[in-house]
Amino acid sequence: MPGTAPPSGMRDFLPEDVRRREHVIGIIKRVYERYGFEPLETPAAENLETLLGKYGEEGNKLIFKILKRGEHEATGQADLALRYDLTVPLARVVAQHQAKLPRPFKRYQIQPVWRADRPGRGRFREFYQCDVDALGSTSPVVEAELCGAVAEAMTELGFSDFVIRINHRQLLTSMLESKGIEIEASEHVATLVTLDKLDKVGREGVEKELEGHGRSRAAVKALMDLFAPPPPSARTTSRAIDGLRNAYAPSTPAVIRQALDGLLNVVPKGGSAIANLHEILALAEQTNAKGRITFDRSLARGLSYYTGAIMEVNVDGIGSLGGGGRYDNLVGMFSGQQIPACGFSLGLERILVVMTERGMFPASLATSPADVMVATFDASGAGPAMRLADRLRSAGLRVMVYPDPDKIGKQIKYADGRRIPFVAILGDDEITAGTVTVKNLAAQTQQTYDQAAAGPAIREALTPRG
Amino acid sequence: MPGTAPPSGMRDFLPEDVRRREHVIGIIKRVYERYGFEPLETPAAENLETLLGKYGEEGNKLIFKILKRGEHEATGQADLALRYDLTVPLARVVAQHQAKLPRPFKRYQIQPVWRADRPGRGRFREFYQCDVDALGSTSPVVEAELCGAVAEAMTELGFSDFVIRINHRQLLTSMLESKGIEIEASEHVATLVTLDKLDKVGREGVEKELEGHGRSRAAVKALMDLFAPPPPSARTTSRAIDGLRNAYAPSTPAVIRQALDGLLNVVPKGGSAIANLHEILALAEQTNAKGRITFDRSLARGLSYYTGAIMEVNVDGIGSLGGGGRYDNLVGMFSGQQIPACGFSLGLERILVVMTERGMFPASLATSPADVMVATFDASGAGPAMRLADRLRSAGLRVMVYPDPDKIGKQIKYADGRRIPFVAILGDDEITAGTVTVKNLAAQTQQTYDQAAAGPAIREALTPRG
Repeated sequence: MPGTAPPSGMRDFLPEDVRRREHVIGIIKRVYERYGFEPLETPAAENLETLLGKYGEEGNKLIFKILKRGEHEATGQADLALRYDLTVPLARVVAQHQAKLPRPFKRYQIQPVWRADRPGRGRFREFYQCDVDALGSTSPVVEAELCGAVAEAMTELGFSDFVIRINHRQLLTSMLESKGIEIEASEHVATLVTLDKLDKVGREGVEKELEGHGRSRAAVKALMDLFAPPPPSARTTSRAIDGLRNAYAPSTPAVIRQALDGLLNVVPKGGSAIANLHEILALAEQTNAKGRITFDRSLARGLSYYTGAIMEVNVDGIGSLGGGGRYDNLVGMFSGQQIPACGFSLGLERILVVMTERGMFPASLATSPADVMVATFDASGAGPAMRLADRLRSAGLRVMVYPDPDKIGKQIKYADGRRIPFVAILGDDEITAGTVTVKNLAAQTQQTYDQAAAGPAIREALTPRG
Repeated sequence: MPGTAPPSGMRDFLPEDVRRREHVIGIIKRVYERYGFEPLETPAAENLETLLGKYGEEGNKLIFKILKRGEHEATGQADLALRYDLTVPLARVVAQHQAKLPRPFKRYQIQPVWRADRPGRGRFREFYQCDVDALGSTSPVVEAELCGAVAEAMTELGFSDFVIRINHRQLLTSMLESKGIEIEASEHVATLVTLDKLDKVGREGVEKELEGHGRSRAAVKALMDLFAPPPPSARTTSRAIDGLRNAYAPSTPAVIRQALDGLLNVVPKGGSAIANLHEILALAEQTNAKGRITFDRSLARGLSYYTGAIMEVNVDGIGSLGGGGRYDNLVGMFSGQQIPACGFSLGLERILVVMTERGMFPASLATSPADVMVATFDASGAGPAMRLADRLRSAGLRVMVYPDPDKIGKQIKYADGRRIPFVAILGDDEITAGTVTVKNLAAQTQQTYDQAAAGPAIREALTPRG
């Protein structure tokens, strides 16, 4: 007999799980549509060559590969692979359908992705991403609007303690090239991926990994001092240069401007990146992201394809719930023609974990399969029960017919266990009289109605609960 | 440069496609929830052993297999596979979560499945199924209610010319065992799978395949005469025995009863199956399936796990849009404990094809990304544009900000091409005055509003379109 568990790191979603997932997805969809983003869906599988080389060496290893079919299956060769993120498929779609797609093109995509990561607490091999991207414009309006849309989605989900950290890949690159650090261009991406682990492995862990790559102790120290300066002592007045002490709290625009300009003194080559950040931040202040933003020079993001501003949304005490940035060169890898792009990805699984822990789901979220259950007495009563069920449905109710003529006590116990609030009982007397007895399980009351009146009565009784 | 096409037989869904898919899925979900079915989702991948041996030999070959990861990858061994249908995963879930799941358990599941079939017109390697199943009861109420729910879904989608054909696996088995045919039990399933191809390869094709299996010409002729009798000649009076001439038209209950009883004379061992069909049909008459049903002795269904009633929904001139039946032994293959089950699967892709061909999508289905586009003049105007956009969103509108300060003519052309009905223009004069000029692109009119009044005005102008 085969086992009954789903594959390692993947999950079955029972009804309560699905309802919570759909609640969150529904809010995110509605907000993104309010901003003019349109839905897109791509296949679960991509041609293997579409994915290889897009996620760095570590990413390549985590791609699930699908065997060729037919007589080729025995060779063990793979030609397809499961989608690893939603960004590379988007770049492929834009290249494939360029002639049909408008420019700018704004889309959202909420679908699962698969990574053969070691499964762990809160880390899965199949998980949903909620992506929102705008293609075809280099305007800072794009980044600012993404911040606004993400802030609105977070707020509508019920979060009040989030902050959007923002940084710039070109500023980071300038930092890597600045005096006393001088890391070669070919090493930039690997260095940023290491720096991105600050939250996970701490300052010492990052320093160790950087030194392991053969860099001098002095260069690593200089890099760390610039990238993640230690908290300022009480007497220092150089707050602007030291950056913002708590990266997870929003800053005022004035503080951010001061921090950026202070950094410009140390990293003069970062001028255009800093100017771009100034523009983005000024526009973001006009959106729902107002008061939610901070600049964090230590934000690096792990993916290699970013080329401009990078962003991450963090919740106090929780960490990242999503992130994104500008990637102006990715579509060109497919189409030959560069199309600028910028996006943001919210992680559905972590959002669900936090919302569950914090009890953020509305009481109105359905917890039962039906508003009313129609009990069945015997084979001859099943027909009238089904006819009544249809009448109750016409009144807008969700109705379950108990299929077997079990003892009435067992049927009521079933309804109670499933949190179905009402049971409609149709005995021989009721059938003859054209009536129905309706039990309210919570109130432990019952009342007999004309069959036509039962639906509206139950509906009215339910309304205040909504 | 990698190619830009999706994998063979798989599709990208652009915004208009996704909206149509969601329209259909939304209706099906709402109807199934009205009947007390709850949502379930399972992983895209299953352990390979979960799927092998469940779909017959042909099915086994069509399963997409996923390579083991890490150091095992080089061996070419597969340990996972993509979901092939939604029924086997359901059986696994019920076995895995038995203690937590209610009995009866009614669930629906709308997710993609993957089959390495030869792609063709309307045949894909990734396609959605919309399944609805009830587990834990052998009552004919289950089959009847499934017919009712499917009929309601079809009606709400806008179909008025469908029929639900019904038959019974045990009746078919009795036919295979009846006098002059006598096919061995071990050959039953293979024979039924062949008979199921009647629609596809025609009577001669089926006869040829049956003879190829080494059966005598006489037995094959007897089988075909019983299974799919030729249309009665004008003078014959044996309509009951000949069955229903047009299997794709609904019958009256009286005609069906006559056909069943007539068949009982020829296949006396089919008594209990015929009694079960009588019960199901009588109950189904109490549901929304009333007047939609016919009995079709030539309906076989291709899957091997059915044990009782089988059903298929057909649309005139189109063929099958879905089907299902009772499978009381499948869960036991996973749990050791038999749990009776019955279900129905609608094929989303074929429904979409027919609805598109017939123009069945409502005019209210969104065809544009936004209700209004805010034009952008220059960098200094972007901030006020974004602020206005937020105000318009607060009035319940979907709003796109054009991100680049392109020429106004180009911006309006973009909105027109995207079928965005209104463009909000915010020049220096308007910004100073706190107003906004709103262009109605269809009417080719424009009007200037206070910024606070623009949202409600646009909303009102849109309402009659809904």
